[in-house]
Amino acid sequence: MSFQNSVAIAGVGETDYSRESGRSELTLSLQAIQAALEDANVEPHEVDGLMKWYVDTSAEAVVASNLGIPDLAWFGEINQAGNVGAALVAHAAAAIHAGMASIIVIYRGVNGRSGRRYGRGDVTGQGGRAGGAFTEPYGLLTPQHGLAMSTRRRMFETGRTSEQFGRQAVIQREHANRNPKATFYDRPLTLEDHQNSRLIVDPFHLYDCCLESDGGGALVLMRAEMARERSNGRPVATIRAAAQSGPGRGSPVRRTASRLFSMAAIERADIDVVQIYDHFCPYVLFALEDYGFVDDAGALVDERGTAWDGRLPVNTSGGHLSEVYLQGMNHLIEGTRQARGESTSQVGQARFSFIDTGIGTGAVILERQES
Amino acid sequence: MSFQNSVAIAGVGETDYSRESGRSELTLSLQAIQAALEDANVEPHEVDGLMKWYVDTSAEAVVASNLGIPDLAWFGEINQAGNVGAALVAHAAAAIHAGMASIIVIYRGVNGRSGRRYGRGDVTGQGGRAGGAFTEPYGLLTPQHGLAMSTRRRMFETGRTSEQFGRQAVIQREHANRNPKATFYDRPLTLEDHQNSRLIVDPFHLYDCCLESDGGGALVLMRAEMARERSNGRPVATIRAAAQSGPGRGSPVRRTASRLFSMAAIERADIDVVQIYDHFCPYVLFALEDYGFVDDAGALVDERGTAWDGRLPVNTSGGHLSEVYLQGMNHLIEGTRQARGESTSQVGQARFSFIDTGIGTGAVILERQES
Repeated sequence: MSFQNSVAIAGVGETDYSRESGRSELTLSLQAIQAALEDANVEPHEVDGLMKWYVDTSAEAVVASNLGIPDLAWFGEINQAGNVGAALVAHAAAAIHAGMASIIVIYRGVNGRSGRRYGRGDVTGQGGRAGGAFTEPYGLLTPQHGLAMSTRRRMFETGRTSEQFGRQAVIQREHANRNPKATFYDRPLTLEDHQNSRLIVDPFHLYDCCLESDGGGALVLMRAEMARERSNGRPVATIRAAAQSGPGRGSPVRRTASRLFSMAAIERADIDVVQIYDHFCPYVLFALEDYGFVDDAGALVDERGTAWDGRLPVNTSGGHLSEVYLQGMNHLIEGTRQARGESTSQVGQARFSFIDTGIGTGAVILERQES
Repeated sequence: MSFQNSVAIAGVGETDYSRESGRSELTLSLQAIQAALEDANVEPHEVDGLMKWYVDTSAEAVVASNLGIPDLAWFGEINQAGNVGAALVAHAAAAIHAGMASIIVIYRGVNGRSGRRYGRGDVTGQGGRAGGAFTEPYGLLTPQHGLAMSTRRRMFETGRTSEQFGRQAVIQREHANRNPKATFYDRPLTLEDHQNSRLIVDPFHLYDCCLESDGGGALVLMRAEMARERSNGRPVATIRAAAQSGPGRGSPVRRTASRLFSMAAIERADIDVVQIYDHFCPYVLFALEDYGFVDDAGALVDERGTAWDGRLPVNTSGGHLSEVYLQGMNHLIEGTRQARGESTSQVGQARFSFIDTGIGTGAVILERQES
């Protein structure tokens, strides 16, 4: 009953990325959707499904009106923070598989720098949340406050170092330097720059932290068969597997990995290229270990293994650190491009493209299919 | 690929209904979930999916923690008003059909009388919404303000009368008088009472309006096969079809009906019993017409055709007018009970049970299956 390879991400699109878009978040979403629809060879009136981040400010009804959708047959969202992109892909794929809608658009438009700056308690919803009474009096107000603590603990337990995080940040910057759309396309980064950059919350240096960005991105999902018909001969990125995870016992990454690879029926070693949600760089290394790709991600980055020409390329567009912070949307776009052979740091003819958009809250494996 | 009859509503449960529960909305949801899980013969730790009304105040993560769910594999919500119950059933059914989760609980817990009273602009989100600048200066602040206008127009166009709305309200009260859980179990209503009741917003009399209630309700969905194994020989209510609708061109009821009956591959005449979202009684009659059940719902209620022993029984638990206002959750519970032969106003051995939970935003057809 699984939708393995029966649904595809048939179109991706984005706006320019900036620190001040000068447009509304709605406009950013609509422009990204328009680009993604063109990429998928879809007319707006053909769209019958919309999904969005819970925290996105452009309601589906408003987007539907603006696109002129005649009969919206599916819409919904997931109530978590920025980390729901892959899970939305899972929802949309299930809907298409069940015949509830035929063309579903997932969108994210955010003025994350010029508008509501996301890394604050009042915007993330972390301020005043249920458990806050036990942490906020001690100054743990934002995501980085809490995650810094668990990062320090993990460094202590496993021996990962700030230099290793820095090497990953440098590698991602190199990817951004190959990606003309990236915020830091023109700005190189050295390990020395990373180590000398100011501490935001110890042990997070400035260059361990994601950007704050204005921009929009969108995906178009449809049946793989329909995607092939509209692909003009280009490869199609089908969804080999997708998984969502919520609260539970033990590591959410391990729980996601277990269900995802079970559905995909492939091994970690089969994955050709990886995108991982990099709100804070250390979590890229931790996720590589917890998803089971490597035992020691520190050693992997020490040997430049996560570079686009390394043995396990990671965040090949520059990611949240150096391309744009679209809360995983840019990882989904880049992962799709890798599966279609269209990245600016293309990993050969990558067959299996892995995308995590929130350290265990959801992940997707795309498969390149010739059309 | 449709999930026709492959997924079932295997359990339903509710709390007591009152005007002042004395408990939190979270507690109401948890108590209802516990009842529904017992009805479905499911242990809390087996649940791996949760879905909720966007407006519900109990986040999935909090409910998951309280239930002790070890690995939440699916959760989500739909951003509309109270009218999303059937659409949530569609989402959950698609998820189970695609193998993304095996047991999904849908819940709604609301202190709609003692807490946030729902029919106010600030709670419904109607106040300050996008189009509000064009209507709010004229006093159209709440759902009833706007819907009163369209009701008057439709009365003018079709000749429906306040007496006909009153007859439906009286019939639903009779159903409530047969339902010990109903808010108005002990209180009969006559057409004269209805006509003499005060106008809330012309043409809505008091008894045209839904209750304001405290209470909780929950549904448990799983594969039909699993439901049969756990049914202890009772009939199982499988989901013959489900549809969601959002904004678009023309009547959302007609668009929902078109997709729903196409998926179900049955005729309107095959439906044995109907539940329709009755925020305001006139809309029950309008929906009966727009779904295509009858051309003239006024004539149907004049002949008592919507009574539980009539030719098209409607809102057999008393509905929002006389049982409880759980925003369609009580309609889903009652519709499931009808398909299992367990209503207090049971319509014979009803085979096809129809449930609308928001006048075109979503609808479900359940089918009785012997186990």
